Amino acid sequence: MDTPGLDIIKNISRSSASKIVLLVIDGLGGLPRPQTGKTELETAATPNLDALAQKSICGMADMVSPGITPGSAPGHLALFGYDPLEFSIGRGALEALGIDFELEAGDIAARGNFCALDKTGLITDRRAGRISTEKSAELCRQLDGMVIDGVKVIVRPVKEHRFVAVFRGRGLSPDIEDSDPQQTGVPPKTVSAINADARRMADIVNQFIVRAKTALAGHHPANMILLRGFSAYPDLPTMTEVYKLKPAAIASYPMYRGLAKVVGMETLKTANTIKDTFETLKQNFSSYDFFFVHIKGADAAGEDGDFDAKVAILEQIDAALNGVTDLEPDVLIVSGDHSTPALLKGHSWHPVPVLLHSRWCRPDQVNRFSETACALGGLGRIRASQIMPLAMANALKLAKFGA
Amino acid sequence: MDTPGLDIIKNISRSSASKIVLLVIDGLGGLPRPQTGKTELETAATPNLDALAQKSICGMADMVSPGITPGSAPGHLALFGYDPLEFSIGRGALEALGIDFELEAGDIAARGNFCALDKTGLITDRRAGRISTEKSAELCRQLDGMVIDGVKVIVRPVKEHRFVAVFRGRGLSPDIEDSDPQQTGVPPKTVSAINADARRMADIVNQFIVRAKTALAGHHPANMILLRGFSAYPDLPTMTEVYKLKPAAIASYPMYRGLAKVVGMETLKTANTIKDTFETLKQNFSSYDFFFVHIKGADAAGEDGDFDAKVAILEQIDAALNGVTDLEPDVLIVSGDHSTPALLKGHSWHPVPVLLHSRWCRPDQVNRFSETACALGGLGRIRASQIMPLAMANALKLAKFGA
Repeated sequence: MDTPGLDIIKNISRSSASKIVLLVIDGLGGLPRPQTGKTELETAATPNLDALAQKSICGMADMVSPGITPGSAPGHLALFGYDPLEFSIGRGALEALGIDFELEAGDIAARGNFCALDKTGLITDRRAGRISTEKSAELCRQLDGMVIDGVKVIVRPVKEHRFVAVFRGRGLSPDIEDSDPQQTGVPPKTVSAINADARRMADIVNQFIVRAKTALAGHHPANMILLRGFSAYPDLPTMTEVYKLKPAAIASYPMYRGLAKVVGMETLKTANTIKDTFETLKQNFSSYDFFFVHIKGADAAGEDGDFDAKVAILEQIDAALNGVTDLEPDVLIVSGDHSTPALLKGHSWHPVPVLLHSRWCRPDQVNRFSETACALGGLGRIRASQIMPLAMANALKLAKFGA
Repeated sequence: MDTPGLDIIKNISRSSASKIVLLVIDGLGGLPRPQTGKTELETAATPNLDALAQKSICGMADMVSPGITPGSAPGHLALFGYDPLEFSIGRGALEALGIDFELEAGDIAARGNFCALDKTGLITDRRAGRISTEKSAELCRQLDGMVIDGVKVIVRPVKEHRFVAVFRGRGLSPDIEDSDPQQTGVPPKTVSAINADARRMADIVNQFIVRAKTALAGHHPANMILLRGFSAYPDLPTMTEVYKLKPAAIASYPMYRGLAKVVGMETLKTANTIKDTFETLKQNFSSYDFFFVHIKGADAAGEDGDFDAKVAILEQIDAALNGVTDLEPDVLIVSGDHSTPALLKGHSWHPVPVLLHSRWCRPDQVNRFSETACALGGLGRIRASQIMPLAMANALKLAKFGA
């Protein structure tokens, strides 16, 4: 064990008036452009972040552990102080969170794909030719609302061929296998129960799949469905239980609002721009003592492989930063939920720069907010789930451990 | 949890054409000579390792954890990605591996000493005056091949007073206590079972000891045996199961080949010189995707307390390094399995410099491969068992963790 369990934090946390702001720049970390040897963050002109780094303690954070590329859920859980090797969110539940669907206790959610079957019943395309979101919405309406053995099946479109299926009723279980075989040239799998308690659930899902197949018969290439990642609403202790905080999330994308809800944050509606996001923070600053502020753009630019666009967004964040610093939160953390180097066009395993500013932070010699500079920071290379205890400590919200 | 379990790695690892080379310089780390303040590695002229460090990410690795001096087995298991606090290899099994003895499933191996008993049956020398290896081999032949209750006892000499005893038969158990009391002036201990299932094993071992005593009666100072570290062949998941690699070991010493076999590597025969070792790598480079390359000399020089000899060997490795780098592996790691400072004449707890080079490594500011320089590297101070996940990530052989 290198990190105290949440039970230990719960025992020593205490409420106070001091305020913590966790600014998450999605996909913050990058890789150097070969021509310059500088990452996106090192290329960007970020005078305000640099000035903040100078009076902060800095470091590099691994969301999960060295070498492990985090999905968005493990990345955010880690930043919220929940060890992602201990706590997880199933694929289906995450997908439901991502479309702002209100999962209820007892619901089982699955990630669905429309897919194409040939005449012999073999899968020819697991994504149904990536049908349009509109077409998908139309097909979802055909599948939505079936009741099987007293269980209601709610079907909602996500994007293109993707949808969410939520099974709502009594005595359901997530312990069933996927129907998605993850390959073409084979038929969809009949869903099987992992344990005896899940047999009824498997039976209901299989009935649903049969009825869906009938309903979709004339809709090739979307003439069948594949389901995977059956999962219940994640049952995590809330940040209020663990940290005695009154936490709020400011995020424009549904998935991040969903992740925040899972740990008990209130979610504040905000527009998509950086300025609006920070304005929402200002408007609500007196009402909460913890703010998770999520900025999406840098990740999207990284995923697109657009180095310069990522640089530009980082510069925009920097230019707007006084919207946060002027509020003078007692503790301000700036970090990311993972790296998204433009060169890799996706999430990566590289650790993420982190900066923590407070009156009590013991500043180090870092005077630039960048991967290279933060690697020499006073926090060293830490696990992201250790950031929340540090934030709590700097907010003087943690009592002594042990006598 | 600070490291994902192997089950997690197994779920996200995937096979690809990219190649990983793990170059292990046994006993790499050192301590500064007081006259110069420089360690062996810092004293050595290593222009090629330094140039490699400049374009790599570097750090310091603890094989087990800070302060813990690793034996060769924990050191190597850690480098192969197996947490040595979770996985271990018993003393007897390690001794058998060290003489290239082919342990079979079900075998129980023990480390043996010839020892001297006085006329009253008390131990006067636990090492039988360090009898010659030739004498030991002769005595081992007298003990070898006994059959007790259907169990065959195989006895093989190691070096001087040391030997290996392997018990081969059905229903054996390693759960028995040592006969070696680890002190003189007392009689050898009668072996006792740790649990009921091991009673027969204890009985067989005790019968063997009695018969050995009779056979050795006229051979003072080698007139008795002491057995310890009863252990089965270690049942570890293979690197192919965990990492989906096709791994090969290039090591001239039997123990390291044995450790490699335990995790499922194929072992390639090679001569003892650095040049031959690297030539073996070149010859086999197309046939595997992971290579553990072991260089022994620096450790031996350290054990001898010969600072200059260790410096010379490090310079030889550096001079031959193009034998590795010219192959352009996708990921190249250079590290050691532990420190062996000449000043301490033995393994030590000091962390070991580690360098990881790949196209995606995000280089740091380290431009010298040394203890002092690597302590400021981008990897920070990591656990050696985290190196393999990093190597896999840099080889793009790890999928995303979590949704």
